[in-house]
Amino acid sequence: MQLGMVGLGRMGANIVRRLMRSGHECVVYDRNPEPGRQLAADGATAVADLAAMVASLQAPRHIWLMLPAGAITEATIAEFAALLSPGDVLIDGGNAFWKDDIRRAGELAHKGLAYLDVGTSGGVWGLERGYCLMIGGPEDVVKRMDPIFAALAPGAGDIPPTPGRDGRDPRVEQGYLHAGPNGAGHFVKMIHNGIEYGMMQAIAEGFDILRHADSPQLAPELRLDLDVADIAEVWRRGSVITSWLLDLTSTALAADEDLTGYSGYVDDSGEGRWTVQAAVEEAVPAEVLTAALYTRFRSRQDHTFAEKVLSAMRKGFGGHVEPKPALPKDPKA
Amino acid sequence: MQLGMVGLGRMGANIVRRLMRSGHECVVYDRNPEPGRQLAADGATAVADLAAMVASLQAPRHIWLMLPAGAITEATIAEFAALLSPGDVLIDGGNAFWKDDIRRAGELAHKGLAYLDVGTSGGVWGLERGYCLMIGGPEDVVKRMDPIFAALAPGAGDIPPTPGRDGRDPRVEQGYLHAGPNGAGHFVKMIHNGIEYGMMQAIAEGFDILRHADSPQLAPELRLDLDVADIAEVWRRGSVITSWLLDLTSTALAADEDLTGYSGYVDDSGEGRWTVQAAVEEAVPAEVLTAALYTRFRSRQDHTFAEKVLSAMRKGFGGHVEPKPALPKDPKA
Amino acid sequence: MQLGMVGLGRMGANIVRRLMRSGHECVVYDRNPEPGRQLAADGATAVADLAAMVASLQAPRHIWLMLPAGAITEATIAEFAALLSPGDVLIDGGNAFWKDDIRRAGELAHKGLAYLDVGTSGGVWGLERGYCLMIGGPEDVVKRMDPIFAALAPGAGDIPPTPGRDGRDPRVEQGYLHAGPNGAGHFVKMIHNGIEYGMMQAIAEGFDILRHADSPQLAPELRLDLDVADIAEVWRRGSVITSWLLDLTSTALAADEDLTGYSGYVDDSGEGRWTVQAAVEEAVPAEVLTAALYTRFRSRQDHTFAEKVLSAMRKGFGGHVEPKPALPKDPKA
Amino acid sequence: MQLGMVGLGRMGANIVRRLMRSGHECVVYDRNPEPGRQLAADGATAVADLAAMVASLQAPRHIWLMLPAGAITEATIAEFAALLSPGDVLIDGGNAFWKDDIRRAGELAHKGLAYLDVGTSGGVWGLERGYCLMIGGPEDVVKRMDPIFAALAPGAGDIPPTPGRDGRDPRVEQGYLHAGPNGAGHFVKMIHNGIEYGMMQAIAEGFDILRHADSPQLAPELRLDLDVADIAEVWRRGSVITSWLLDLTSTALAADEDLTGYSGYVDDSGEGRWTVQAAVEEAVPAEVLTAALYTRFRSRQDHTFAEKVLSAMRKGFGGHVEPKPALPKDPKA
Repeated sequence: MQLGMVGLGRMGANIVRRLMRSGHECVVYDRNPEPGRQLAADGATAVADLAAMVASLQAPRHIWLMLPAGAITEATIAEFAALLSPGDVLIDGGNAFWKDDIRRAGELAHKGLAYLDVGTSGGVWGLERGYCLMIGGPEDVVKRMDPIFAALAPGAGDIPPTPGRDGRDPRVEQGYLHAGPNGAGHFVKMIHNGIEYGMMQAIAEGFDILRHADSPQLAPELRLDLDVADIAEVWRRGSVITSWLLDLTSTALAADEDLTGYSGYVDDSGEGRWTVQAAVEEAVPAEVLTAALYTRFRSRQDHTFAEKVLSAMRKGFGGHVEPKPALPKDPKA
Repeated sequence: MQLGMVGLGRMGANIVRRLMRSGHECVVYDRNPEPGRQLAADGATAVADLAAMVASLQAPRHIWLMLPAGAITEATIAEFAALLSPGDVLIDGGNAFWKDDIRRAGELAHKGLAYLDVGTSGGVWGLERGYCLMIGGPEDVVKRMDPIFAALAPGAGDIPPTPGRDGRDPRVEQGYLHAGPNGAGHFVKMIHNGIEYGMMQAIAEGFDILRHADSPQLAPELRLDLDVADIAEVWRRGSVITSWLLDLTSTALAADEDLTGYSGYVDDSGEGRWTVQAAVEEAVPAEVLTAALYTRFRSRQDHTFAEKVLSAMRKGFGGHVEPKPALPKDPKA
Repeated sequence: MQLGMVGLGRMGANIVRRLMRSGHECVVYDRNPEPGRQLAADGATAVADLAAMVASLQAPRHIWLMLPAGAITEATIAEFAALLSPGDVLIDGGNAFWKDDIRRAGELAHKGLAYLDVGTSGGVWGLERGYCLMIGGPEDVVKRMDPIFAALAPGAGDIPPTPGRDGRDPRVEQGYLHAGPNGAGHFVKMIHNGIEYGMMQAIAEGFDILRHADSPQLAPELRLDLDVADIAEVWRRGSVITSWLLDLTSTALAADEDLTGYSGYVDDSGEGRWTVQAAVEEAVPAEVLTAALYTRFRSRQDHTFAEKVLSAMRKGFGGHVEPKPALPKDPKA
Repeated sequence: MQLGMVGLGRMGANIVRRLMRSGHECVVYDRNPEPGRQLAADGATAVADLAAMVASLQAPRHIWLMLPAGAITEATIAEFAALLSPGDVLIDGGNAFWKDDIRRAGELAHKGLAYLDVGTSGGVWGLERGYCLMIGGPEDVVKRMDPIFAALAPGAGDIPPTPGRDGRDPRVEQGYLHAGPNGAGHFVKMIHNGIEYGMMQAIAEGFDILRHADSPQLAPELRLDLDVADIAEVWRRGSVITSWLLDLTSTALAADEDLTGYSGYVDDSGEGRWTVQAAVEEAVPAEVLTAALYTRFRSRQDHTFAEKVLSAMRKGFGGHVEPKPALPKDPKA
């Protein structure tokens, strides 16, 4: 079927490629004309603006936005709202805030337009492995677009089936889920990323302790010099923590067990923050997911003001003058 | 080759079975004679006491202990120390504390006995999938016992190889690792379990937030009724958090998405505590691994004394009288 | 000067009493007529509705709302907005969300009305000790109301002056602060409460560890039977953690060192949640303030769904069947 | 009465001074002769070695060690054990590990020597304000030394008495506590310091959020420029969080609200670590005390290995290349 795609970054462009491999017809647009030219060479129809995209698609139109969350997405939706006709569908496949989805869906419904929020996981591997899709919106629209979602999803692959799922929605085992009404798709994707932060942090802390098993803070007879690359690899087979994140860790450590190419500055992309906000709003304790987020905040500062307040108090009651060492780039080095 | 096995619980018995499938000869003992009888029916030699085991094995002997950590293991090692001959080998395959391994190895070395500490992951699935092994001790002993370890380990299987490992120790990709000198095997296993706690807690918190997405604390138009079983399943394909722990979660939720068969009382088995201790000794921050442990502590109490102290202060400054509700068994129910 | 007070709960009524002791004239209203009758006996003018209050005050009017945060406050402000005249002032002395203050101030400004947000700390002790006030809003209005704030604040008392404050705003040492424009008063009060949660939790955890120093998990020769009431008391003199919260803890433990009158169910009142939200929005790590909040969430549940998910995974990989004990009411008992 | 003091750093020397002010007779020793000379000028008897100290004191002798925890204290105790006579008393007033106290007391008892472990709080202010003392050991020895403890403690001062303490041990209200048998003194001091870490961190995080209330991450209309020095000061009067630590914070911020003289590198001194260890051994959740410790660990590194592991995973699944900015010395600056 036909799909318009707005936003041809890595994610948007690869979604288009995966759809075209399954025979779908894509009309594409990006502010930067270059990725559209490349996709046109592969069979897509590149257009020069949103009006041209609307003109190029048959009603009811299905237009997928793959843009940075926030102002650009909002502006693009507003522009489309003026161009589209009742029955047309806008899909936000980016990482929008789920409450924004609920608001937007209500606004678009007033104009007869449908809206889907689609959480999309898969990263740089999605083109080959497929995208795990978490969809929020009206069931009839989700059904109508089933060929698109089925083409994007990974499929059952050689992953063993989960016992006890007979009679349940078979789409789920293909790797796409109609999670509920608008907001549900991005809510589920948000929690996915929140869990991702927590699992990553668990692995990262474990390797930090392993790396410092020869710490001078330990008695000499207790110091252990461990090979973190081999440890990551052995855990990939038969251990309880086998996971894709561990696979990636093993690959990175095999290349350089000191990870010297990484600064240690770690970004966060919004979903981790929204996850904490949801936990707080629901009054659900979420220690691990929150600690994982705070670690990233901390990684982006030389020192916090909080730490200086601690030093100031310590000087006040104990006369401690905190040293001001040039911090080691790596405490092991 | 020959192996003596002491402790025929599920782990010990299945290790024996997996070894015999590869043609190894096992002499077995347990205080309870029943599992020995069953293994004898499968071809093992069951003996009546430790002295009989020593008599049944050819020197140099290799005896694997699969016993609860602590007093029983210590007593058994002491008894063997009096029975064995120089050159014999004791292997502790349980979850010992790594500092105990270092001490024990030193004590046994005085008598000419060798010692290996082997962290063993695989749980109830190890018999079929194989055991991930993390080994500490002298390289010559580890080499001599290679047929045993190779038979127990999962092998490379169909897990994709990690790029960049050419020239590295090939045993690792078979699922067993000589991690270093004594203590290293259980240290690595300890951190494995610490990471396991953290990853489990990340997943658990995420599903808690999902389950309460329809919380009455949210405005009515924002409440979402989500199917946690389908969510777990869809994440198994193409998402970033694919993992064995997620597979297990999906299986459990497919059987009963309310998990009514579980009380919520969660044990911990020592390695999580030792992981925190190691982090503190090395001065490595380990927020997530520690929070995961504390959650388990908390799960085993009705209320903490700390919470009562909070209520007492609140009454003191604000006159708040904390309600004493019968706590709901499930806040969703 | 004249002040109208709406909301005559403990806080509102005591503020009126403290003001009347300093000779201020109060017009009071509450949905429930009883507290107004009592205050009228002490010299206040009790009125029957908001219109009567407006009629009873001379312009420019100053009306203080001491109502539960949320819908009631919003409705009351809306009703006053229709009754008041340009130049009149509304003060919200409750625990409003600071972003609501900024919005409200903007809305009221369109009608020529001024607005102050006043964070008020002091609890049940404020009548005698005075209230610590954190004020947001226009400086001219804050200045005009100075007699009110000065009467409510504790004054310098016998608290030793802080060195180095010469030339700084002298109101601060009297216990009231003009923190900044609208929103600043409640923002500062919010952080005050966030810190309060964290300090309370620190004290509470410490006493929990003290109380369980005779835990059966410790070797018998290491168990200590400590008197938590005496410990709290001794720390009141000369220790680094002397604080009002410790004073209150000592009082509670002197009355009953088992705190049997407290269930352990601990409420939270909004500011702790908003503090976490502010930390996340500013990307400031706030581990302790957040953990303190989550402890309260956890205290209000029998078991979390997260804990059941942990048990389900443990059964999946290890065959562990979590016991379902009747939880002890107190692990020490 | 007579007291020997070994270790004349700031704490040891000031204890001697405070005792001499009350008429006690002090024999003093330090490896460095200078502080002994100064105290001799004030009336103490300075000796040249431990044997001379033993010779200078009448039996039963009371000798207080104020030395760094660890090897020096152990060696000094061993040396005294060979010099002293049955009935003599050794007091460790430093920050020893409570399990070491129990071991040492047992060892010394074999030689007929008594041992006290005395946790001492008061820092640089102790000379004037008095020291809060937490004492472990035999009651008869504690009673005999009461004049010493009474002279060191702050006394009741003008701190309001706690209601409900009639009939309780009156020493406690003077600021010294016989906490229990050996180990109890340092256990209680350890938890004091653990709570201290937690309270400090709560205050520090709060001020960090206040300082960044004008963060560019907030919408412009929500940014607040707050005066943290005035905020600390106002909370000293009538607020719930009044405390000595807040007093010290106010003093530091009054001097420089940017705290530019502090690097943000924060040490920890052992008790915080032991507190976490005790919590883990007792299975008491102690989130806040632990997070406070980890913050200090983190403050002493440029970047953790854990953070690099996070970046490596992020590159692996998402192609994210973490920037390597020169970290701002202060995110506000």
